[in-house]
Order: sequence, then structure tokens, then C-alpha cells
Amino acid sequence: MPRILRINTRTKEYTFEEPGQYAKLGGRALTSRVINKEVPANCHPLSAENKLVFASGLLGGSTAANSGRLSVGTKSPLTGTIKESNSGGLFAHKLPKMDILAIILEDKPAPEDEFSTLFISGDKVEFRNCADIMGMDNYPAHDKLMQTYGDKMIAGMIGPAGETLRTTATIQFTDPYKRPARSAGRGGVGAVMGSKKIKAIILDADTNEKVAAVDADAFKDSRSRWVDILRNHPVTSQGLPGFGTAILVNIINEAGALPTKNFRYGQCDHAADISGEKIAETIQARQGKTTEGCHVGCVIQCSQQYNNAAGEYVTSGFEYETVWAFGANALIQDIDDIAHLDRLCDEKGIDTIEIGNAIAVAMDGGVIPWGDGKAAIELVKKIGTADPMGMIIGNGVGFCGRAFGVERLPLVKNQSMPAYDPRAVKGVGVTYATTPMGADHTAGYGVCQNVLGVGGNVDGLKKEGNIELSKNLQVATAAIDSMGLCLFVAFAVLDAADGVQIMADLVQSWTGQAFSTDDLVNLGVNCLKDELDFNARAGFTAADDRLPRFFDTDPLPPHNVTWGITAEELQGAKV
Amino acid sequence: MPRILRINTRTKEYTFEEPGQYAKLGGRALTSRVINKEVPANCHPLSAENKLVFASGLLGGSTAANSGRLSVGTKSPLTGTIKESNSGGLFAHKLPKMDILAIILEDKPAPEDEFSTLFISGDKVEFRNCADIMGMDNYPAHDKLMQTYGDKMIAGMIGPAGETLRTTATIQFTDPYKRPARSAGRGGVGAVMGSKKIKAIILDADTNEKVAAVDADAFKDSRSRWVDILRNHPVTSQGLPGFGTAILVNIINEAGALPTKNFRYGQCDHAADISGEKIAETIQARQGKTTEGCHVGCVIQCSQQYNNAAGEYVTSGFEYETVWAFGANALIQDIDDIAHLDRLCDEKGIDTIEIGNAIAVAMDGGVIPWGDGKAAIELVKKIGTADPMGMIIGNGVGFCGRAFGVERLPLVKNQSMPAYDPRAVKGVGVTYATTPMGADHTAGYGVCQNVLGVGGNVDGLKKEGNIELSKNLQVATAAIDSMGLCLFVAFAVLDAADGVQIMADLVQSWTGQAFSTDDLVNLGVNCLKDELDFNARAGFTAADDRLPRFFDTDPLPPHNVTWGITAEELQGAKV
Repeated sequence: MPRILRINTRTKEYTFEEPGQYAKLGGRALTSRVINKEVPANCHPLSAENKLVFASGLLGGSTAANSGRLSVGTKSPLTGTIKESNSGGLFAHKLPKMDILAIILEDKPAPEDEFSTLFISGDKVEFRNCADIMGMDNYPAHDKLMQTYGDKMIAGMIGPAGETLRTTATIQFTDPYKRPARSAGRGGVGAVMGSKKIKAIILDADTNEKVAAVDADAFKDSRSRWVDILRNHPVTSQGLPGFGTAILVNIINEAGALPTKNFRYGQCDHAADISGEKIAETIQARQGKTTEGCHVGCVIQCSQQYNNAAGEYVTSGFEYETVWAFGANALIQDIDDIAHLDRLCDEKGIDTIEIGNAIAVAMDGGVIPWGDGKAAIELVKKIGTADPMGMIIGNGVGFCGRAFGVERLPLVKNQSMPAYDPRAVKGVGVTYATTPMGADHTAGYGVCQNVLGVGGNVDGLKKEGNIELSKNLQVATAAIDSMGLCLFVAFAVLDAADGVQIMADLVQSWTGQAFSTDDLVNLGVNCLKDELDFNARAGFTAADDRLPRFFDTDPLPPHNVTWGITAEELQGAKV
Repeated sequence: MPRILRINTRTKEYTFEEPGQYAKLGGRALTSRVINKEVPANCHPLSAENKLVFASGLLGGSTAANSGRLSVGTKSPLTGTIKESNSGGLFAHKLPKMDILAIILEDKPAPEDEFSTLFISGDKVEFRNCADIMGMDNYPAHDKLMQTYGDKMIAGMIGPAGETLRTTATIQFTDPYKRPARSAGRGGVGAVMGSKKIKAIILDADTNEKVAAVDADAFKDSRSRWVDILRNHPVTSQGLPGFGTAILVNIINEAGALPTKNFRYGQCDHAADISGEKIAETIQARQGKTTEGCHVGCVIQCSQQYNNAAGEYVTSGFEYETVWAFGANALIQDIDDIAHLDRLCDEKGIDTIEIGNAIAVAMDGGVIPWGDGKAAIELVKKIGTADPMGMIIGNGVGFCGRAFGVERLPLVKNQSMPAYDPRAVKGVGVTYATTPMGADHTAGYGVCQNVLGVGGNVDGLKKEGNIELSKNLQVATAAIDSMGLCLFVAFAVLDAADGVQIMADLVQSWTGQAFSTDDLVNLGVNCLKDELDFNARAGFTAADDRLPRFFDTDPLPPHNVTWGITAEELQGAKV
């Protein structure tokens, strides 16, 4: 039975523990339980009392399609809430193969202590000197790590932003193409790793336990049907592989819900220039690649390799939300500038959504001109340096608003909103307001029913039905995150009658523990309860579930719709 | 009957209104009522929906000693709470002489609009071009205003910090010596004025209505006894006039409650170098002045004129809290550096407490060395410029903490604590935690009973008695602030059996409205109720009344005492 590896970053002691009270949990349900049980809710997120948890899902290590997502949990330095930040990469599938269910980083070193890398091999954890990669961008630092630890090593690492404790700092994970291109992106989890002075966690390539399904035959059957489900839905079999997530640019723009110019408009004049179709065309013309997976076992393949005009690699994991943030919301038209910014965010280790929005706020405050991609690049380059402008931009939207005197700030719980205007896609707006995470589309993706017609139809322009919709999606999402599944499986599951049953069957046959569809729902519900309990003890109340007032006072063109849901009504979306 | 002058800063329209629902209110009770009634509690403090209110107290315009304090009310951009920021200067006594009870600034101009000065003369309000003083420090700008409007004009003005919307920005008021040296210091009220693009409000020297007590004989008697009370107490007749408020440096250091090195210790090795005694000695040696009043009619005279070694004026209103913040908390030993910093804060228009603490946090984060006064001066000079370091420092302690990655932040509701460590002076600690203002010593000065033996004795090192003490002081203070009295009258009133009765008599005889000691208490209680109601609707709960965890986990030398009062217990301090 996989163990919990608990590492004290101050004393450099570590223990492998039986899961105990955390048995039968995985992924987000596990990280949120640990944080809720072990971290004082009102501690400072960068203090010794906070912890940082890395956990594979219940299906981690298995060959079930799209089950290699990782949960990173902590008290967020951006929001002050509990946080689960979810990432692709190779880390999640590797942990169970090392007989590890989760890694918990605790305590913090003294101010005068140096950063270390943690090398985990077999039952040994070494704190190693990492002076050679300090301050280095993630791609070159990852190359150096591969030189040291072999090119099959798997890393979770922070860039200059995490080292300098920026509240938008990510943790970047090794992807299947030996790039640190997958991010636990939101909530500043990289700053917590930085506060504990861990530059990188390296999983030894040579440590591989045999892992297998407890009920191999049943698992094989479920796995096969699971692949069918994913391969038979148009979104997961055609839309996402063909154009990546940026296929949404035209769709959301058409729906009048693409936040433009710091959430002033619902449509963007140059949407076609930054669309998934345009990106796919560009990639093909430049001999890039439109279909890559973020982890081994992915059958959706929504990632890509985006090259520059000379055919050289620029970036991957070039997501819709990134393209939107820099492209529509900050009005940058040149897709090559946006790709450059995406790469820069991976290099510095920063959240593209938060930083894209922060750039829009900087433009709103007159720091740089609207749409100036080159100026945006120069600003982002300052993040992780001693330049105080980098400190400001690197701390996200709320911080930039105060620095630049901008009052128009699309925030919930100090986390900025992603690429769907809540006024026109109220299903996801309810999620922004009520998820324990702060504004987060991945916590309950109402876009499915509001815009895409997946899993039914609910009008995104009206309140009716969206509170219940968001609540159901939040539960389902928490369960999916806890199984270690990619959220995009939901597209297919929502339209497959046996989708939920198959997911439950996968867990039951893989783990050998009885697991019904009710258990699956409870996994999600209990995860949310842990999160809401932590937040309540940290001082969050219904008042924190409000959207900023401008969503109520300023109608969004072209539908000229306002928000209009009260914090009291929103409480119905909570478990 | 004095009127309310309501000015729309966008349309440039104004009206003089009968007080209506605001009749019988003054000072803080009036500003807090207006904000609670008229400002949406969850609006952005820099948005058009926020308002900025200037109000004289119930005794404003009278000849009662020490009755010329001004209340400035708004929703604070620093704390997000309601805010009353209290100032000396000539503004408060002048308003009733212009038949004005309060000025309310509303709405805000378009982003492309220029700043204006407001010239108020008789029943006319003019928006005037102020391009000639934009970006200018307060002293030279004030000189320019005197050239334009005559040297008897009375101004309330913002400096570069207010223009640039820094959340520590003050509004500076003309003092009796033609200097803009009195501050509505806390909570960033200057940023709200900046958001409304008003650089200065000028009260015309030539507009003077006749004001007189309604019951002249009774007023004369009460006034005479009032002066006796103030002149017969050692604190108000000897301590404060002789040494200014900085007389507290040695006293609080002796008590082990002088926060030192960002609230690590309760005593400071170089306390003697920055003591009131040392300052008074220096002032005398340099032909300065140890006794000045912040407004006409002051019989305490705790202000001063501090000169440099060449005998040239440097600063006045050189308060204990300022000396402590830069001196003990940031470890700056050179009193001339501290005086320079005090002047700089008045020039830029920034809160000395918040900025002194911010400098300590910058030192804690390694931005400049501990105790380096010259480096601190260079940092403070950046505030109000386009330099991003100035944006950071100028936004106070919470902001600096995030920028510099410092977790040790002495904050309540994002306002930093003044010069009394709450662990060792729990009476004022309870006030920090529970006042609607964020950490504020002036909202309920438990130091009197915890340290000074004024108004009784309550042990500051223990919980017992301090919750009730703070509650009573908060009520009394709200009443004093609403009458327009200087808070220091409390020292004398607490030890005079007829003190409260005389204050009530002053109000009754001056205004002609029946006013008992019960009315006085209710004035304070209702003021606090307005404030707490606003904050609750803005989303503040008991959880926001907690002190940061390090006060519970780190004992304070030399008494090695921790905080140890829960948020639940603290609720007993609220009306």
C-alpha cells in the first residue's frame, strides 16, 4: 500500500508513513484533507506552519486513460484559502510506482539557509545543493537537472518567481517530452515551495515498483470501455486534439462571453487572429505538432508544440485561457507575442491567467499601452528579479490594482477570473463565486451547459438553473480531481450514460476497494466539505462569495447583461 | 444652522443642504453615519460610489479648549472598512464659521480629466485648475496656494502619494503656523481624495460668519471649568507640553511594550537616543520650539518645531508614534534622520505609522539594512513617483509583506499596529483587534490604564479587565471624536469627577440642544454601531478581529508574554 512521505524542510528529516486516516483518499480529496487537518487555518501561507502536499489520484500509476493528473495542495498565499492546484506531467503516475501516495513538505528553513533540491530514490530522500540552478529559468534549469539526474528523471520545480515568493508562482512538472511545461498554475503554490526553500523535487528514474490492478480482469474491461467513451465524444476526440483548448476562442467570442479589455466587452475584434484554428494552421505551417498529451496515457492529446517562424520550438501547453488573457483581455493581437509570453510564464514559473490579467490591469493603469505585446514581454521578464516592477506584476491582479490605482479588478478571493465572463456564462460565474479556490473555471465548468451544449443546456445569460448546475459540477469536479483524472473526461462522461459507473468501476478494480457511484459522489462532496471547513475557519464567509460590484453595475456587450446573483442565493451552490 | 455641502466631483455641481437626518451629529458620528447610509459597503474604495466626508465636531467653531479636531470619513482603500481619520489644523473650526457642518465629495471624474482644487467661498464652490502644483510636495504646494489664495487661506490637500492613489496617503491640513503639517493620517483617505481628482480644498480666509454659543452664559462657565480640568492634570499640563507625545518613548520602553525590530522585542537599546527628553533637549539647543498647538484654542500644546543643527525648521507634529516607527521598530538611531523622515511623510502626504512599519518590513525582507536611516529616506522619496518601489512602500505593510516575502506583519484588517505591543499592553491590543478602524491606538487608548495609571490601573500583561476597558474607551473615544475634541482631553477627563458632565454641558450650551452625559455615551455607542454595521455589510466578521498568529506563538521579551485572547472573547469589546 503506497505510503505518505513526510519531509521536514528545516530539520531535513523524513518518514515514510502508512496512510492511516488518509487511506482511500487520493488527489485533491487527499491534499485538502491533509491541509484541513494539519494546517492552522489562520496561519500565514508562507510560514513554517503551512504545508505543501503532492498527491496522485486514486487511479494514479494505472493505465486508465487520462488518469495521470497531480494535485498540489496548500494554503494559498494568493487567496488565503485552501488550494488545490492541478497539473499534468509525469509526476503523478510516477509516485505510486515508487510506492508513494503523497509527499508532504513541512516546516521551513531558517532565513540564512540555502535552497535545496530533494532527490527521492527508493526509500531515500536527499537534500542536495542546487546553487548551480538558483535564479535560473525553468527550461535551462530542467536541462541541468537532466544532466545531473539522467534524462528520465521527473521533476517538480519552481522558477525565479517561486524562489522570490511571488503569489502567482507555479510549480512546473516534467512532461512526456522532457520539458518543464506542465504547471500547477493557480494560487501561488510555487511560493509555498519557495518559502520552504525547495527548488525542485526529483523523482529518480530508476526507482520503479511493479504496480498492477487488484482486479486485473475487471480493470481491463472498464479501461477499454473508458477509452471508447473518450474516443467517441466529438469534443475529446476531434475538437481538443485538432485545435487544442484554444478552439474555444471563436466559440466563446461567438457566445459574447470572451472577456475583452479587462472585462469591458464580451467580444474581441481580433478573435480570429488568436483563434485555435489560426494557431493550428500556424503550427502546421511551421512543422510544429498539434496533438501532444500532458501525461502518458492521455488519449485526448490537447497539447501541442508551437514553433516560431524559423521552425524552432517556442512553447507547448498553449491553452485557451493563456491565449485569451494576453490576447483578448490585454488586446495583444500578435499570436507569436502571446506564445512568447506563454513560454516566459513557464520559464519564470508563473500562472498565465493571473499574469495575463495583471498585464491587462497594468495597461488599464497606463503602465504600458493596450495591446503592446513587446512591452508586456518586458514586464513579465522582470518577474523573479529584484526589480520592484517584477514584484508587483508577479503578485497578480489584486496587487497590481493597488499598485496602479485600478479599481476594475475581476477577482474573487483575490484570484482573478479566467476566460469566461461571469455575466454571460453564469454557470461558471457561480463557480467563480462559490468554489473554495477563488475564481477558477476548472472547479465547476458551467461552460459545458451554458455554451457547448454538453450534458444538457442551461441559459448562461439567466440565473435560473445555474446555481444547481454549478453545485453539481463542483462535486463532480472534486471527484474527478481526486481520482487523478483529467477534467476534460467530463465532456465525454456528461454525454455517456455509463460514464460515471465506468469511472467508479475503474477505481474499484484498480484499488480493490468497493467503490460505487455513490462513493464517487461522496468523494467529491467530502472533499468540498474539507475545503469549505478550512476556509470558514480561516475567516471566509458568504460575503467573500460576491463578485466585484462592476459586474452588477456594468452591462456586458453584446448581450448587455449584468450579474445579478446575490451572495445569499449563491450559498445554494455549496455542499 | 450649519449646512451640508455636497459636491459632485464629476459633474462639478454642488448643493448646500439642511442637515436633515444628520442633524445633532458631528465629527466622527456624522462622517460614519453618512458613509454607512450612503456608500455601498462592498464598493471599491476608489470607485465613484465611495464618498469622502469632512466634518467638524459638535463643538467645532466654538471657543471650548481643544475642540478644533476634524473628522474625515470614507471607505478606506487600505482596510476596506469604514474609516474616520482625525486631524488637527484650522479646517474644523473654520467650517462652522462658513455655515458648513460637513463637506461631502461624491462620484469621480473620468480617467482623462485633470485634477482640480476646490475653492469654497461664501456660498460658492469653484473647481480651479491646479496644474501648477500637481506632483509637488505639500510644503511648496501649500506655499503656492497661499500665494494664490492669501496666506490666511485654510487648505486640506493631498501630496504626490494621494495623487497616485497610494493606500497610505494622508490629507494634510493647514496648521496655525501656515504649514500643511497636520494629517488625517490613517487608512489612505488621501487616496480617496486623489481618486476624485481633488488636489486641495481651500476655505476662503475672508468668509467668516458670526458663530456664538446658543446659551452664552452656561457655555462660558463650562468653558472655564473645562480649561481648569485640562490645566490641572499632570499629563496635559506638564508631560505633553514639555516633551510632546514622544515623552512616551522612555515610558513604553520601560514597560517592555515598545515594539522593536518589526515587533520582535519590547525594549529598544537606543531608546534614550530617540526619547522625548532627548528631542526636547535638541529642540531647545537649536532654538526650536517645544510647545505648539495643532489648532487654535489648544491649551495642551504638545506639538513643536524641530530644527536641524543649523537652526532651520525641519518638522513639527513630530509624534511619539513616528519616532517609534522609524526609531525603535526600524532601528534607526539618528533622531535627525527620523525628523527628516517625518517631514518627508508630510511632504509626500503619507501616514508615518504605516510607512515606518513598512520600512521595518523592507528591512526584514533585506531590501535595505536594519537601522539605515539614509536608505529609508531614499525609499520614502520614491513614494508618489512612477518608481514601482515607491508604489510598494507607499501601499503599506501588508503590501510590502507580499512584495518582499515577509510573513511577520503586525496587521489588523490590513492596517499596521502603532507603537504599543499588544502582547504587553493588552488593553490597546483589544482595541487594535476590535475597533472598526483596523489596528488603531487612538480608537481606545488602553495605555492609560495599562501603563500610565490614568483613570485607574489594569494589568496590560493579562487578559483580565482589558476587554471591558477597551470597550469603554472605544465608546468614550467615539464620543470625543464626534464632539471635535482632541483625544488628549481624555487623560484629564478620566481623572476628573466632573469631566464627562462638563463635556456634555459644553455641547448643550454651545448647540442649544439638550445634551446629557447619557447622550454623550449614546453618541459614542451609535457611532460605533454605524461603523460595525458598515463593516459587517462589507463582509467583516469576528475572524477579522484576530491578531496575526505570531503574537500568539512568539513571546515578547522582556516579559515573555504572548497575546492569548481569542476572536470569540474579543467580541465582548464591541458595542
